[in-house]
Amino acid sequence: MKGKVYLVGAGPGDPELLTLKALRVLRTADAVLYDDLVAPEILRLIPLTAQLQNVGKRCGIKRTKQEEINFLMIALADTGLQVIRLKSGDPMIFGRAGEEIEALRKAGVAYEIVPGVTSALGAAATAEIALTHRRMSSAVVFITAHQASGSAAADWAKLAGSGATLVIYMPGHDHVGIAANLKNAALAPDTPCAIISQATTKHQKLFRTTVGRLAEAPQLPSPTLLIVGDVVRGSDALISELASPLSDDLYLSSTPATHLNPPAVSAVQEPVA
Amino acid sequence: MKGKVYLVGAGPGDPELLTLKALRVLRTADAVLYDDLVAPEILRLIPLTAQLQNVGKRCGIKRTKQEEINFLMIALADTGLQVIRLKSGDPMIFGRAGEEIEALRKAGVAYEIVPGVTSALGAAATAEIALTHRRMSSAVVFITAHQASGSAAADWAKLAGSGATLVIYMPGHDHVGIAANLKNAALAPDTPCAIISQATTKHQKLFRTTVGRLAEAPQLPSPTLLIVGDVVRGSDALISELASPLSDDLYLSSTPATHLNPPAVSAVQEPVA
Repeated sequence: MKGKVYLVGAGPGDPELLTLKALRVLRTADAVLYDDLVAPEILRLIPLTAQLQNVGKRCGIKRTKQEEINFLMIALADTGLQVIRLKSGDPMIFGRAGEEIEALRKAGVAYEIVPGVTSALGAAATAEIALTHRRMSSAVVFITAHQASGSAAADWAKLAGSGATLVIYMPGHDHVGIAANLKNAALAPDTPCAIISQATTKHQKLFRTTVGRLAEAPQLPSPTLLIVGDVVRGSDALISELASPLSDDLYLSSTPATHLNPPAVSAVQEPVA
Repeated sequence: MKGKVYLVGAGPGDPELLTLKALRVLRTADAVLYDDLVAPEILRLIPLTAQLQNVGKRCGIKRTKQEEINFLMIALADTGLQVIRLKSGDPMIFGRAGEEIEALRKAGVAYEIVPGVTSALGAAATAEIALTHRRMSSAVVFITAHQASGSAAADWAKLAGSGATLVIYMPGHDHVGIAANLKNAALAPDTPCAIISQATTKHQKLFRTTVGRLAEAPQLPSPTLLIVGDVVRGSDALISELASPLSDDLYLSSTPATHLNPPAVSAVQEPVA
């Protein structure tokens, strides 16, 4: 009997943001092919009898080619195993699930997709930024930074300049380049933006700035996300003053985001805790 | 002692798509203010001792005004209760969380945001549509249908015509109007699209068509989502022929989406099961 492949979203970082369904499926796994960014606490939920393989890539170094991942999924399922392809975030957003689905269909392997909390929503929760807002933004765009150059550059500029909230996945550390692309897309220099690093984990960090001062922003540990748009301003009218020089105060603490009082409007970034 | 408010995403429909964190928080609730679309199975997880109140709106009829919801959250937290504001999908996408956060900050009430699986990702999993794809789409836009008219119409057209995958939340039943707006945004008539109804629930239904034939699409039970773009075509080269007259075959069955064989390429829509 043939096995089955589950394409499962592991969520943005916090192991508690796994869904009940993902947990149930993981507990019945015979083999798990996982990405680098999946939390160790989630991997510990997998039965000890299951085969585990890291097929992630990081910092541009491909550990396992997409074709090899496809081959592995199919070969393992062909031996009758319950195979989990475990991805950080959600499989259908920048996750190459499309290519994996195509390969599974061609091979006649049964599969099922288990959605997850995508990184943008983890980052929005961490930074307390509503991605849409009745008065500020009626649309949100998920995009990557590297599409800004090359053949898709015109579309990138159109999307960035649309007035929608922009969530840039994998922005990398070339803040000078991203700032230039955002200015080319006609975004005003005082448009607020936020870099969120390792969102929803205990190492999460937040840096708020503006498009005009993004080039001076610090390099935060990956994975990061960049949110751009008026919604970043939120209720804080003085956000344009917040792009002050880097100090420890600029970082989120490692405790969950909880306000006991309204955050003070001040000229330095307050930690969320 | 003051209580605390949790803005919690309940996910797209399937109660198993609740996160572990949302479950933990719900189990300690003293009061829950919930939206109409939250599944009854999720409400049954709430302690019997907790106050429950439906503050949803449906079909444009507002049950509870936003100001009243804000007032209730704050008043309940002020009496020391653990208050859950439970929203379908994710709170930060078309969920008015921005307004609620502003109100909580002003009132000095402690709060925390628990992200969820947004409806677009539930629909993508149901319809097996990867929203981004290396060869087809490097960006995805979440937007609502009603912004297509009014002052934001120019931005709507810019976003719709950007080449990104488009996910239209709350498309409603005016398929003629939406089709006209998509054509005005210069989308080709053969651009594939899919209407997904009650995604991830046992009542989920799917209808695939094209922008050119969207006006003839059936009215499916709400909530629905409309996904537009080349990614909808997926591996199916004959999708432009699929906009055939409505029949029972056009619908997804109520069982979870699982392929035992690659879906046949045929001139009628195949059920996913």
